[in-house]
Amino acid sequence: MGSVKTKRMPRAVREQQMLDAAVQIFGRRGYMAASMDDIAELAGVSKPLVYLYLNSKDELFSACVRREARALIAAVRAGIDPALPPDRQLWDGLLAFFTHTADHPDGWSVLHVQARTHGDAFAAEVTAMRAEAVVFVTRLIAEAAPGAHAGRDVAGLAEALVGAAESLAAWANTTPGVTARQAAATLMNFAWAGLGGLLEGRLWSPPRA
Amino acid sequence: MGSVKTKRMPRAVREQQMLDAAVQIFGRRGYMAASMDDIAELAGVSKPLVYLYLNSKDELFSACVRREARALIAAVRAGIDPALPPDRQLWDGLLAFFTHTADHPDGWSVLHVQARTHGDAFAAEVTAMRAEAVVFVTRLIAEAAPGAHAGRDVAGLAEALVGAAESLAAWANTTPGVTARQAAATLMNFAWAGLGGLLEGRLWSPPRA
Repeated sequence: MGSVKTKRMPRAVREQQMLDAAVQIFGRRGYMAASMDDIAELAGVSKPLVYLYLNSKDELFSACVRREARALIAAVRAGIDPALPPDRQLWDGLLAFFTHTADHPDGWSVLHVQARTHGDAFAAEVTAMRAEAVVFVTRLIAEAAPGAHAGRDVAGLAEALVGAAESLAAWANTTPGVTARQAAATLMNFAWAGLGGLLEGRLWSPPRA
Repeated sequence: MGSVKTKRMPRAVREQQMLDAAVQIFGRRGYMAASMDDIAELAGVSKPLVYLYLNSKDELFSACVRREARALIAAVRAGIDPALPPDRQLWDGLLAFFTHTADHPDGWSVLHVQARTHGDAFAAEVTAMRAEAVVFVTRLIAEAAPGAHAGRDVAGLAEALVGAAESLAAWANTTPGVTARQAAATLMNFAWAGLGGLLEGRLWSPPRA
């Protein structure tokens, strides 16, 4: 018994601990202000070990972005049952999205703010994740209104909805007392009610040009 | 007559030419890939003159972000008549926004992608611009439904709408054939129709938790 030799821990487990610490530090302080010393200390390992496993601050950050993007995609996918009606799928997907971003505010900060704020290489993973979300929403709208819309209109609506969700997640995470369910309901009311009107032919008419 | 001595040009005019060139190069190639040589060449001045006027690549980029943010804010403000009904103000504001971002795609790229991708200092100006947009939309929604909503709901809706507009502007600028008017109409149909339902008490109901 007595003190457990920490070096006995498998590399994969140790690496996840380093990533947990790094996501927290990057997410709260930002990429620039984050120090490898603080990340190593929070992870309970030596700084040389962090460099041995993850090579550099850049690669450590990259690994954080990849891990957080994959976790978010997996959470949203797991929340959706493709056999359900489109509005129910959208609700379930939004609820899974806002629940995950609320449970992992540092991870969302890394994806939404930090990855975009610190370079094109980091932003690529986020761009791919976003493209998947747009494809998903486009499919839902097309299913809800088969043949009713040109592809370009549907794509525009999907872009609007994904942008709205990103914006709301950042707002929900920085506004005390806003739950994931409230954020999802706000967006459904905002978006699906509008889409519902569209699908039934109730359009908002712009004034003549 | 004959060759005009370019050095006779007033400093303010010359500076705007440098910023025009810089916005184009930063917007199309990205901050990292943009070279001061190319910016000076496009502006038709020597590189030392660019450094003399704008000090560094960082400060030149900063000046671009400031100028483009102010121009966008001024364009949207000029498009709005506060005496009109809220949905008309929102339509006019969106039309001014999408028209300006379509007419200045490089400027929008600098604001939407480049400023966020290259550091917190650059992002501050964009954050302030965004905050003004959220305040404007929050006021419109509150005017449209006086007393109908808690402030937090309205703030969430405003965040969603601004995020949707940002996302749509980037999409419209990269999708051939999408006009500013179409982008604005897409968002009004998506958003205001949904808001209209909300204001009349037609809510989208989430399934029980």
